[in-house]
This record gives sequence, structure tokens and C-alpha cells, in this order.
Amino acid sequence: MPNGAFCCNGRTYRAPQRPTLAICVDGTAPAYLEDALARQLMPNLAGALDGGAEMLIARAQVPTVTNVNNMSIVTGVSAAVHGISGNHYLAPDGHETQLTDPSALRAETILAAAARAGIGVLAVSAKDKLRALLGAGGVPSISAERAHEQTVGGLDGMMGTEIVGRGNPGIYDPALSAYALDLALAIAPRVRARLVYCSLTDFVQHKAPPGHELVDGYCVALDERVGWALADGWIVGMVADHGMNAKTTMDGSPNVRYLADILDAAGVVGARVLLPITDPYVVHHGALGSIAFVYVSSSEIARAGAALAGVSGIEAVLHRAPAARVFELPEDRIGDLVVCADAATVLGLRATQHDLTGVRNGLRSHGGLHEQDVPLVVCHPLLRGDSRELRNADLFDLLLNFTA
Amino acid sequence: MPNGAFCCNGRTYRAPQRPTLAICVDGTAPAYLEDALARQLMPNLAGALDGGAEMLIARAQVPTVTNVNNMSIVTGVSAAVHGISGNHYLAPDGHETQLTDPSALRAETILAAAARAGIGVLAVSAKDKLRALLGAGGVPSISAERAHEQTVGGLDGMMGTEIVGRGNPGIYDPALSAYALDLALAIAPRVRARLVYCSLTDFVQHKAPPGHELVDGYCVALDERVGWALADGWIVGMVADHGMNAKTTMDGSPNVRYLADILDAAGVVGARVLLPITDPYVVHHGALGSIAFVYVSSSEIARAGAALAGVSGIEAVLHRAPAARVFELPEDRIGDLVVCADAATVLGLRATQHDLTGVRNGLRSHGGLHEQDVPLVVCHPLLRGDSRELRNADLFDLLLNFTA
Repeated sequence: MPNGAFCCNGRTYRAPQRPTLAICVDGTAPAYLEDALARQLMPNLAGALDGGAEMLIARAQVPTVTNVNNMSIVTGVSAAVHGISGNHYLAPDGHETQLTDPSALRAETILAAAARAGIGVLAVSAKDKLRALLGAGGVPSISAERAHEQTVGGLDGMMGTEIVGRGNPGIYDPALSAYALDLALAIAPRVRARLVYCSLTDFVQHKAPPGHELVDGYCVALDERVGWALADGWIVGMVADHGMNAKTTMDGSPNVRYLADILDAAGVVGARVLLPITDPYVVHHGALGSIAFVYVSSSEIARAGAALAGVSGIEAVLHRAPAARVFELPEDRIGDLVVCADAATVLGLRATQHDLTGVRNGLRSHGGLHEQDVPLVVCHPLLRGDSRELRNADLFDLLLNFTA
Repeated sequence: MPNGAFCCNGRTYRAPQRPTLAICVDGTAPAYLEDALARQLMPNLAGALDGGAEMLIARAQVPTVTNVNNMSIVTGVSAAVHGISGNHYLAPDGHETQLTDPSALRAETILAAAARAGIGVLAVSAKDKLRALLGAGGVPSISAERAHEQTVGGLDGMMGTEIVGRGNPGIYDPALSAYALDLALAIAPRVRARLVYCSLTDFVQHKAPPGHELVDGYCVALDERVGWALADGWIVGMVADHGMNAKTTMDGSPNVRYLADILDAAGVVGARVLLPITDPYVVHHGALGSIAFVYVSSSEIARAGAALAGVSGIEAVLHRAPAARVFELPEDRIGDLVVCADAATVLGLRATQHDLTGVRNGLRSHGGLHEQDVPLVVCHPLLRGDSRELRNADLFDLLLNFTA
């Protein structure tokens, strides 16, 4: 292996030639960046593209939700290998559990492997729900959401907010993503991190389509920070964990199919519906996304499958084994049925179980097959000559192995 | 580009450093080779493995049928790009049409691109149904099935059988695959072909499981020819187009779900079922495989989906768009629904439409998700260091770009 190179999950990565920043632009469908570029709101990104960088389209892992895809990005492998099949799942003990603990992760992260090889690393997340997973294997990690009470080694106990020099925005503040980047760029040189991962939040994308002023503010702030990093000599790349689509009916209300109600009406006994998008941030999406896991006995599975496949807005119903195979998911952490909705539809439990207050002004969400196309930009010319389909899990490979 | 290198469908291939033979071992699930190797029936393959070659598992394209996957292998891309979605399909004019004409192919073959770069090429197929597709772009092609009446340029009008020096076996003769290899090895030096593709037939695999004497004969003959080629200085690699599974009930009879009958019983109006495995060789599989396309109006699609998803042995029902996406298929050449059976089940039209005489002694078939794992062997040490999932479409890449 070349000097300083390291292996992780079967791939070899070169040591960073320069400080390297991988950004996860949470929920940023390609149209967000395309629109902002077209309106010249992102001059630094535009300059990189003029200089030979490319805006590529990569494929996200299904379910297209945050924890699953952040883990794909930082491990370089599919969920079948890394084991994180949703923001939460049905544990073997029958309880629904948030998949936020590193003990659930079945693969080493590229950051942890780099650290083992003596490379300084740092993980920053906007949302605290990701911090522990990103910290797996002893990676120094901090969240913008909790930067007022978190620090990492090498900062002499100073909290993240003290390093940035201003207070952190709340979880539902559009400025939280920019703050996460500020945190990353402020901490990295102090702790000599040369490989930095910074995962943003999709609050803005949940609330607004491309071209909205909230989005414009997000893109401008992102572009400024990319510019600062490039000016400081960083290698910078970004990819989204998932895209984002409007999930509303003609009158603007959330376009939901309540699966537990549908299964009840069909006389299916003992089924349980789990929504992998579920997380603590209910204002984002009300736990409504375009994929669901259904747990049902083998004697009831045909009845359940028939009931679900006959619903308008549901476009795929797969049993556990084929779903695990085609979506590269861990078979023991998905349902007996995996149900996929179309681009404009989300799946819920029962009508009585979802509080739609937070999304009454329009629901934008993700989780399904129609949020798999994500932008991938490495802000430097790439040394690559093959046409294999890219995944968001290839970001570190491109940053470390295919830049000059 | 290095001297003699050529591009095809976005990948760059080196010119063959030595004469190079890519073999498609039709229908050869990994267990066939594993069993033959374990019983020391394939000493040449075993010697290659001892010398640093690896037996890899690659993924086949769905539908896991011959034409689709042969085209993936020779183009290096998915069916979404090359356009061959089955052995046949429903043409825009409403007629079912065999997908055997090069006009249906939407991507250049690696053989044609190599020929453009001045490299001598040759395509040999056991089954004549493949010959025209393999000959796309002017590639010299010949089939074992028709070798008595076919020739290629450079043979002064001599038929294939004359070059081999003995008559060709029939399409249902277990020796046809070995004859195809003999044809390839006999013709190649005479026409100065340095890049040769030879596609065998799965008649033996349809008729017998690993360990059967028919299979032993096939493996021994294959291994002999691999040995001859290696001794002559060829680079040799092989991959299967698809695997093979028994599709029988406990009593040994074919385990079929007749979809048109099921749709009729559910009151679905105007649906049409198409079986992508359908080809002229009915003794192989009786046109019964583990995938089906259903054409149905949008007003009937929910009813049809419900009827199909509720059938035991059917394990996935996807609408056209998600099926095209997850299986990388051309959206205009698949059904409104794509229906996948489990490993032991096949899908038919109506009970009255299939003649099961040819498969009454046991049905072994393919077409679905459970025939996606195929063996891939390059008989030389490979220069590769990444863990990306391999596809059978990567065979030429490995042969040309990753051998010493």
C-alpha cells in the first residue's frame, strides 16, 4: 500500500494529500443546486465547475433517509453491509428503536479507519441524532445542535460554540447547516484534522422547493463556506444523502396512505407497520416518507400484500428477501414486506397516529425510490475514466483516490 | 488513450495484450463449477485458481435470461442502456417480438468498438438466436447450431463445420457448447481474431443439477478447452448470463402460477401477460421462468397488482417506473407491472397455453431474482483493489484492463 494509505471495507484509500472536507448536503435534490447555480447564487461552486469539476448524479441507498445514507457515505458500502436500515427499526425484542447507536453499525467508517492509520479526523453533524453514529470507532464528533455543550479532544474543554465564537441556532433554524460547516472549519485546524466529514440538515429542503428564499439563503451560505475552504487549500466535495419531493394532493394537503388502516380494513390480523423515516424531528416530515416496512405473519402475508398492492400511490410491494437483495438491505432489519410509494405519496401508520400540524402548510419528504438521485460534486477535476454508476457512498473514494 | 485502447459506452478498454477469450457459460450457477472443482473434474480451471486466479461471484441483470445478459456482457452496461429487456418483448405495434435483431440494440458492443479500433474480433454462439445480436456493428459471428451453413470473412467461404472438421451437434445435444468453443478456437487464428466472445448453451443446466453426469461431461469438456486456450497463450475468462434453479413442487411437477388465469379470476379486464424468457427452445424451459411483464390499463392496474401480490410464490410486484429503476431496465420495453416469483416458482400465461411435455421430468429454469448470482472467473491473477460489486457486464473490463 502507498505511504499513509488505508483500507476500509475492502477499498483502499490514499491518505489525504491536502486537508479534505466531505459535505453531506442533507436532502438536497439536484434541482436545488442546479437552480442556485443557474441564478448565480453559488459563485464558488460555479468557479470549481468552470475549472474542470463536474456536477455528477449519484444514487442513494433505499430507504432514502438520513441515517441510512450518512452511514453509506462514511462507510463506502451498502446498508446490507453497514446494517443501518432506517432512522429506526424494529428490534429483535419487538420494540421500535432509533438506529442511532454505534453498536448497530456493522462496518467500520472510513473516518475510523483513517484515524487508525494516524490521520487526523473529525465528524460534524448539524443534527445531534447522527453524532454518535459518526463517532463510531472513536472518531471525534460534535453536533451543531448541541455545540453549546459538546467539545472534542484537543480543544482544551472549550465547547463548540466557543470555538465558533457565536451561539448555535436551533434544530428548526435554517442557519443550522451553515453553523455546522463553521464548526467544522473552525475546529479542524485546531485539532489537526485532515479528513473531515460534515453532515448538514434538510430542514430548509423539507420546507421549501428550489428557488425559495429559504433555499437561496442556504445555498449562498453553503457556497461561501465552500469558497473559504477552497481558498484555504482544502479538497472539497459534497453529496446528498437523499433527494426531496412534494408529497401533496391537488389541494396542497399531505398525500398519505395509512397502511395500518388499510390492513385493518382488509382483515389482516396482527400486522405491524414501521416507518423507517421516523426520527425526533417531526416538524420536518411528520414521520411520513415514501417507504414502509410491514411485519406480518407468513399466514397473513399474501392477504397483506394484496391489500397494499391494490392501493393507488403504492407502486411496489416486495417480500423481505427480494427487497433485501434489490435494495441491498440487511434482511434482519427490514419488514416482511417493503412497500414503496410513488413520488407524490407518503405512507403512514393510522390516520389517528400522525400529527400533521407541522406539515399542514405542505409536505415535502423522501424515503422512497424517487429520492435516489442526488448531486455529487467534487470541486476539483477528477481522474477517472469509467462509467460505472456512482453512489453517494463513493464520495470519499473520489475525494481521496481520484483527485490530483 | 494508450496505444490501441478503445472506448465503448463510457469505459476505456486496453487492446488485448494477448489473444483474449471471453466465455459466457450459459445458465451455469456457481454450484455447477464449485461441485466440478471439488470433484477434480476441472484440472485446468483448478490450476488457474492455484496460480492466483479467483472464482468471483458477479451479479446478473434482471430478467435473468440469455439475450438480456449476453448483451450486458458484450456491451458492459445495463439493459436500461442496451435496451434488450428479454428474449422477446411487446413491440409498440402490439405484437410480441423476439429481441434478436441488432436494430433493437441501443448500445455498441465492445466487440464492435474493438473492431473499429482495428482489433480482430469474433463472436461465436451455441444458439443461433444470439448470433445476429452478437454480430451487431459488423462483428464476424457464427453459431454452432448453424455452423453447417454459416461462415465468416477470412475463411474463403468454408463453413464452420469444415473448419472444425466434424459435424455440429443439434440444439438439444449436450455437446453443443463444447462445439461452440471448438468453433471459436479453430476460427480465431485463421481470421486473426484477438478478442473472441463465445456464448454457450444451458441445455445441460436446464436438464440437470450440479453433479449429474450430463453436467460432469459439460464441465470436463469446458475445462479441456480452457486448458487448450491457456496452453496456446490465451487470456481466458468466463461468466454466466444467469443461474439456474429447480422450479418444482414436492411431487416434482412444474411449480407454475398462471398469471392470465389469475387476472381473469380477479375480474381484471384487458390485461396481457408477457414472459421475457420465451424463446424458440421450448424443451429447455417451456417458456416458464420466474419473471413476467403484465400490460394493463391504468384503471385496472390496482386490481391487477392486488390479485398478483396475493398469490403464494409471487414475492414482488412493481409498477413500470420503479421496476425500470431498481432493475435498470428500459422503461419502454417492460410491462406496466413487473412480477417476480420466488426461487422455486415460475410464472406462466394460462394453463392451456403451455405445453409441459418437454419439462415433465422436472423443470429447472431462471429469469428471476434468484438467478442473479453467477460465477465469474478470469484464469489469471487480477490487478484490482476495490470492493465494488461485480456484474457479469464487467467481464471484458477485467479481461482487458485488469490482467497483467
